[in-house]
Amino acid sequence: MTSIDLNADLGEGFGRWRLTDDEQLLSVVTSANVACGFHAGDAATMRRVCELAAGRGVRIGAQVSYRDLAGFGRRAMDVPPAELAAEVAYQIGALEVFARAAGARVAYVKPHGALYNRVVHDEEQAGAVVEGVRLADAALPMLGLPASRLLKLAEQAGLPVVTEAFADRAYTDEGTLVPRGQDGAVISDADAVVERSVGLAFSGTVTSHSGERVMVRARSLCLHGDTPGAVELARRVRDELESAGVRVEAFA
Amino acid sequence: MTSIDLNADLGEGFGRWRLTDDEQLLSVVTSANVACGFHAGDAATMRRVCELAAGRGVRIGAQVSYRDLAGFGRRAMDVPPAELAAEVAYQIGALEVFARAAGARVAYVKPHGALYNRVVHDEEQAGAVVEGVRLADAALPMLGLPASRLLKLAEQAGLPVVTEAFADRAYTDEGTLVPRGQDGAVISDADAVVERSVGLAFSGTVTSHSGERVMVRARSLCLHGDTPGAVELARRVRDELESAGVRVEAFA
Amino acid sequence: MTSIDLNADLGEGFGRWRLTDDEQLLSVVTSANVACGFHAGDAATMRRVCELAAGRGVRIGAQVSYRDLAGFGRRAMDVPPAELAAEVAYQIGALEVFARAAGARVAYVKPHGALYNRVVHDEEQAGAVVEGVRLADAALPMLGLPASRLLKLAEQAGLPVVTEAFADRAYTDEGTLVPRGQDGAVISDADAVVERSVGLAFSGTVTSHSGERVMVRARSLCLHGDTPGAVELARRVRDELESAGVRVEAFA
Amino acid sequence: MTSIDLNADLGEGFGRWRLTDDEQLLSVVTSANVACGFHAGDAATMRRVCELAAGRGVRIGAQVSYRDLAGFGRRAMDVPPAELAAEVAYQIGALEVFARAAGARVAYVKPHGALYNRVVHDEEQAGAVVEGVRLADAALPMLGLPASRLLKLAEQAGLPVVTEAFADRAYTDEGTLVPRGQDGAVISDADAVVERSVGLAFSGTVTSHSGERVMVRARSLCLHGDTPGAVELARRVRDELESAGVRVEAFA
Repeated sequence: MTSIDLNADLGEGFGRWRLTDDEQLLSVVTSANVACGFHAGDAATMRRVCELAAGRGVRIGAQVSYRDLAGFGRRAMDVPPAELAAEVAYQIGALEVFARAAGARVAYVKPHGALYNRVVHDEEQAGAVVEGVRLADAALPMLGLPASRLLKLAEQAGLPVVTEAFADRAYTDEGTLVPRGQDGAVISDADAVVERSVGLAFSGTVTSHSGERVMVRARSLCLHGDTPGAVELARRVRDELESAGVRVEAFA
Repeated sequence: MTSIDLNADLGEGFGRWRLTDDEQLLSVVTSANVACGFHAGDAATMRRVCELAAGRGVRIGAQVSYRDLAGFGRRAMDVPPAELAAEVAYQIGALEVFARAAGARVAYVKPHGALYNRVVHDEEQAGAVVEGVRLADAALPMLGLPASRLLKLAEQAGLPVVTEAFADRAYTDEGTLVPRGQDGAVISDADAVVERSVGLAFSGTVTSHSGERVMVRARSLCLHGDTPGAVELARRVRDELESAGVRVEAFA
Repeated sequence: MTSIDLNADLGEGFGRWRLTDDEQLLSVVTSANVACGFHAGDAATMRRVCELAAGRGVRIGAQVSYRDLAGFGRRAMDVPPAELAAEVAYQIGALEVFARAAGARVAYVKPHGALYNRVVHDEEQAGAVVEGVRLADAALPMLGLPASRLLKLAEQAGLPVVTEAFADRAYTDEGTLVPRGQDGAVISDADAVVERSVGLAFSGTVTSHSGERVMVRARSLCLHGDTPGAVELARRVRDELESAGVRVEAFA
Repeated sequence: MTSIDLNADLGEGFGRWRLTDDEQLLSVVTSANVACGFHAGDAATMRRVCELAAGRGVRIGAQVSYRDLAGFGRRAMDVPPAELAAEVAYQIGALEVFARAAGARVAYVKPHGALYNRVVHDEEQAGAVVEGVRLADAALPMLGLPASRLLKLAEQAGLPVVTEAFADRAYTDEGTLVPRGQDGAVISDADAVVERSVGLAFSGTVTSHSGERVMVRARSLCLHGDTPGAVELARRVRDELESAGVRVEAFA
């Protein structure tokens, strides 16, 4: 039976501020990318999200970021590799305490925002993220884009890798994401997102920007929870996947 | 044979800034209170200090603090207990990654600065620190003042407790510290500090401010490393303790 | 003709996070307490709010706070007076740039959150806030509670003072606020809030917690904008004040 | 008579940490680049440095930076222009308060660290810095490298520009800096630094990396104060300039 993991960013508030409806998202996803304090996520929020996730059997992942609260981790930074590796390990360690206290474990790592985009191509920073993960736990899976330097280096370093796709993003004929900012890069039509989700889960393919059917192998689909209506759409994606006979479950 | 532990604060720089001579201090102390990022201690420094400490067999402790880089954790804060507990756990978890990566473990917890002083008397915050430690590891020893609420509550919660004394601070007839700011609260004469160290180790007593001999039971002596000449004095304290037949070793 | 100023906290987001509906609030209030970056308010938000406020003729005030993003300035801190004075001046200066760039000026100062509460009674911190304001501009009005140490010391230092009242807070028979946390401290009934607003504006009195009519002299009413329905209530308060013949305008 | 300005970075501590010997440096330089809180420089330090500088007649400049305390502003960041402009203005405004309180004014702006290097070539960020300065004061001089985009855009925007040179850095035959990291990029021989300083002041030329005499027009020389012996070298540079008949004074 076909199965797919659904992941989303959670716990992305900070102190007084909230961003995502964590309770609702946790009723939809199977993997929770929990912010670890560098772009969002104060300690009390991390604890609460880990308790909620563990209580529902949702897998906990460390969503690691540049140290940039003011920019929400969306501003690329030239962090020297030794600093970046240490910062990644720091965040994983901090989250691990709350995951354990809730009876779970940090089960994977996913870079956030500008760091996520940077390590698709940047050999040095990708290597630093891998080193940071290995400092924390040499058997921790890395979640990212199929063709990224990050997953390549993670694999070479012996880390399990988990590929993900985006049902609400346009793809090129080569199976890479159309950069944000380009026309049509983000797909806002809900029906299209649902249909693409099912296609990605079943056939591992998606219709590209130019109309070609391209292969996008993904063990996980990334859903978004920070825009109006996003949780409802995520819920609908999950329902339609299950109706279509896809088992929605965390990756092995 | 009489034995004593020597502890000091290490890794209290941040980014470009340095405060203590960590390499030198690590050749003197048996327990290193490592800053965890809230009052000092960036991730790269934490990693380096853990490697140095583990390499020399010095025990690693988490020096947890209020979140206050600008005030170096020296400004008391009314942090609600749930936030404080989570912040304490966060810091311990972050340090644990670097301790483990260096082949060691976080072996104890010691509050820093204003938090250290606050939990001597403040029931609520003392309880929050204990809860934070238990979130991280229910068997982690707590290092602090003998008569503090912190150690009392830690004991009640089943945590091992380790008492410490200060050879460079004046004591009242009741065996508590003469508050900084009062005349003679800090003892700057090196010979006196050395003599008091040996007295504390051998007899568990010290001469009070008023000239009485008072009992100060301490399993560890706290040395300071952030003033000119401090490392030399710490080295001399250790040498004289050993000459006097005291075994200088980490607490069990 | 009776007149009253309406003030509210604005620009209390940070980076990715939003808290208040600044555009809506600016259509209601006559004085905008703009967050200056220490508890909320990044530089781009400060600029935008100043432009909006100046465009609508709303007066701009500096809402100064403890340096505490994680706690939203709601955690009291023992900041030494010299540091606090400098931090207050820093925030005013930063805001002044955006006020001027928008063709306006910082027209008053109001402490935020825990600092606001602290300087009601704390002589030392109240004096530090006054000193900080005077560093920035020795003629800048201070907005606060009538019976506070802050306004007393501000007056003694030659600063203009502006008193404020809260239509949604219960008052004691002495005309002070019933502390939050006590039963009935916050008044949530919209009709009652509106009625109290009109009473405060016209007669400078309000019905106390125990049913007495007490005097609360206030040149400004503080409205809240950070809860659901708050903006609608603020709008209604303004409408009813105007219907009752009160001129709603910034203090002189 | 030939004259030259000497500038150096000051006030680059933060809270408990110190970096430069501000008192000593202020007895040497004629322009002080004061850190404004984003890479270094807490409010109390900014106040103190402004008082010291004003007391000695040293000109005060705003040393603006990326928001990056952990990286000391040395990590390039992709800050969107609107954010960067607002952050630059914020820092200038904060410093202006302390300059005015000391009886002086912010007299120029100089970007720090990674931002300094970035705006040599990056059109977008250079434009944002210029916009930020103009938000604060449309007549504020900009200090930077002769051939930089920053000075070019500043000039086009009507800001006065002031060029600077580095006596302790190697130059290419084109009169640009040999990048740090390349062999011989930094000149550590004190005699050479002194000789180059005098050469730059008198003839506006310096011997390039390859031995050519190249033109480097500079109205100001940048001295460093954050390494051992730096202040002594700075003092010697000033003494030899004066002995050679150069008037050391702030730029007009």
